[in-house]
Amino acid sequence: MKDWDVMLTPYKQAVEELKIKFKGVRDQYQMSSKQTPIEFVTGRVKPVSSILEKAKRKNIPLNRLEEDMQDLGGVRIMCQFVEDIDTIVKIIQKRSDFEIETERDYIKHKKRSGYRSYHMILRYPVHTINGEKKILIELQIRTLAMNFWATIEHSLQYKYSGMIPEEIEERLASAAEAAYQLDEEMSKIRGEVQEAQQILSKKHGDNSRK
Amino acid sequence: MKDWDVMLTPYKQAVEELKIKFKGVRDQYQMSSKQTPIEFVTGRVKPVSSILEKAKRKNIPLNRLEEDMQDLGGVRIMCQFVEDIDTIVKIIQKRSDFEIETERDYIKHKKRSGYRSYHMILRYPVHTINGEKKILIELQIRTLAMNFWATIEHSLQYKYSGMIPEEIEERLASAAEAAYQLDEEMSKIRGEVQEAQQILSKKHGDNSRK
Amino acid sequence: MKDWDVMLTPYKQAVEELKIKFKGVRDQYQMSSKQTPIEFVTGRVKPVSSILEKAKRKNIPLNRLEEDMQDLGGVRIMCQFVEDIDTIVKIIQKRSDFEIETERDYIKHKKRSGYRSYHMILRYPVHTINGEKKILIELQIRTLAMNFWATIEHSLQYKYSGMIPEEIEERLASAAEAAYQLDEEMSKIRGEVQEAQQILSKKHGDNSRK
Amino acid sequence: MKDWDVMLTPYKQAVEELKIKFKGVRDQYQMSSKQTPIEFVTGRVKPVSSILEKAKRKNIPLNRLEEDMQDLGGVRIMCQFVEDIDTIVKIIQKRSDFEIETERDYIKHKKRSGYRSYHMILRYPVHTINGEKKILIELQIRTLAMNFWATIEHSLQYKYSGMIPEEIEERLASAAEAAYQLDEEMSKIRGEVQEAQQILSKKHGDNSRK
Repeated sequence: MKDWDVMLTPYKQAVEELKIKFKGVRDQYQMSSKQTPIEFVTGRVKPVSSILEKAKRKNIPLNRLEEDMQDLGGVRIMCQFVEDIDTIVKIIQKRSDFEIETERDYIKHKKRSGYRSYHMILRYPVHTINGEKKILIELQIRTLAMNFWATIEHSLQYKYSGMIPEEIEERLASAAEAAYQLDEEMSKIRGEVQEAQQILSKKHGDNSRK
Repeated sequence: MKDWDVMLTPYKQAVEELKIKFKGVRDQYQMSSKQTPIEFVTGRVKPVSSILEKAKRKNIPLNRLEEDMQDLGGVRIMCQFVEDIDTIVKIIQKRSDFEIETERDYIKHKKRSGYRSYHMILRYPVHTINGEKKILIELQIRTLAMNFWATIEHSLQYKYSGMIPEEIEERLASAAEAAYQLDEEMSKIRGEVQEAQQILSKKHGDNSRK
Repeated sequence: MKDWDVMLTPYKQAVEELKIKFKGVRDQYQMSSKQTPIEFVTGRVKPVSSILEKAKRKNIPLNRLEEDMQDLGGVRIMCQFVEDIDTIVKIIQKRSDFEIETERDYIKHKKRSGYRSYHMILRYPVHTINGEKKILIELQIRTLAMNFWATIEHSLQYKYSGMIPEEIEERLASAAEAAYQLDEEMSKIRGEVQEAQQILSKKHGDNSRK
Repeated sequence: MKDWDVMLTPYKQAVEELKIKFKGVRDQYQMSSKQTPIEFVTGRVKPVSSILEKAKRKNIPLNRLEEDMQDLGGVRIMCQFVEDIDTIVKIIQKRSDFEIETERDYIKHKKRSGYRSYHMILRYPVHTINGEKKILIELQIRTLAMNFWATIEHSLQYKYSGMIPEEIEERLASAAEAAYQLDEEMSKIRGEVQEAQQILSKKHGDNSRK
């Protein structure tokens, strides 16, 4: 029998540390009066029941879990605009407190189900009482609309054990399309907002000189 | 000069207590394996700069703030489905640890801007070191899609000081419509999910007897 | 088999609410520039293994737990000076958001082991998704020195399964005496601090008039 | 005028990260059923008013604060037994996620006032939105008794602006002596506890073989 607590403790620790780090990024943007690309951050360690279920489904031997199941520890960053995702990815690529193993852009190349998100697998050095250990953490970066849809899709997947009936799948797909349209429209407004802000700040500049 | 800390301390306390209480509702649903109507809970005390700005705009004398500015303390409950709002409202109406002063249903009667939410003003008894005090707290109940739109609208309102240009306002309105459609579609899926679950549980029932 | 999660959920909720409430008392004192009688607050729900062990030892039937085991939910308030305990007890007696079932003063009447603390059993109304429920919560009020000693005694009791060897028991007793002397000495200094502060504030008053 | 928020934000971030890291050490000990040397962890960023007051008193120019005032960010680890301090120091010396600048052992060499603690100045790499920055953080390691006394001494120092009257200073010194005696006695019990545990486990070993 596997001692899950022992195996998962470093993941719990890494998730807590990364949450504090990315929340710190948000706070630093807010402190410096710049619009933050990060809306909120969540994290979780995969429950043992889900690990077992996924290991069976994907045929992963239990002694290969730490390398082959790359979402034992997961952190999620939510943002308002699609463009923020790019900003966040660049912030993360510049950091040196972990390495990036792989990146998957499910935004440019969305999944057949309609799923959109930017995924990164990080190799994060955790200091445990037995020394340093480098473990894999999955980082998902999404807009609020992507997250909204994904949350609902996930609960339906869970309810239907991954076999969503075709009719509902079609509805999910069109909901995904609607979420996508929402993001698109928001992006257009974002551009205008930034133009408008430049115009306004110029006006203020002119005014302040009068 | 007003001592804001003294005035706002009970609101800070009430917001903390209500957050713990509504998060508790969510945890209790999850513990009892029922689908929770509450997705997450946030809260805040209105910053002094916003209080002053609103008092000026709405012509509220500073000695009338506690009765006339009903969102000094604010708590927000987010849910997945529009139908969850009703469930939450009923849970709240049954509680006896506060009174409900007023309710406003901006879902049945959405604002001209496209804003949708269910608002309740609670009179909440806080115990301070100077004795019990009953204060007003605004509770907003929304779906994730409503919240998504409202967050973006709020930041635009702030940027444009409440005077959003017509063109952008139109785009916001159509975005609000898209968010509404998303909620509608999700509600339809929800029905099917529940039907499907009943069918499935019947099937399982039959199976388990074989 | 008992469903412990269902039974203990209201206790978890009550402990969280009471922690927020007593931490609020501390924050309010600090906000109003008065010296706070509360140093810090902790809380816990009794682990199931400890419940079972205590039920066996004290001969409590499992269906009588909620009335007969009065520390299923526990909250602890720590303070600097023995005199603060009295202040805290009075603050708690004035509140109307719970009732006080019993009070035990193990400070005036310390236990044979040397244990000192002020205990209150509160009947606290928790609002669960099944309606209001009034449950018992044990509140312990102690100085830091009392807590220091009690923490160590507790771990020794645990290690020796309640049968501490006589020699060690004697040492614990003399340590308890030392902790008591520490509290006594601190109390004396406290008086002088307050006198000194009055003298100083008078001096400052004189100075400010020059 | 200095922008304190900008200067102190990395310290806030570092303190949060170190708190999570040392609490993690405690949790890992508890998870692996070993007695944890860490009882609890606290942290704080020095308030601006205290920075200014100390800069004046110690004659530190404001542009030298980050190098010359080494407790802008502070983390404190509390433990039960004096021996735990050594264990914690060794754990910290082995880590590679920060460097140790200096160590001061105010336990072997207590201050004239009676103050005892183990101090380390860490150089901690914080990742901010402007890149990596290595900042100084003061780490204090103490027993509960040392902390108890130090907390009270600190509040008296504050009240008397560092000029504690001789009579009270003498009382503080004898209280420090009492706290020291308490720690000494506890250490002696600790040894016995460990011997007793070895004897017990041997007995159990024998029993289990019967």
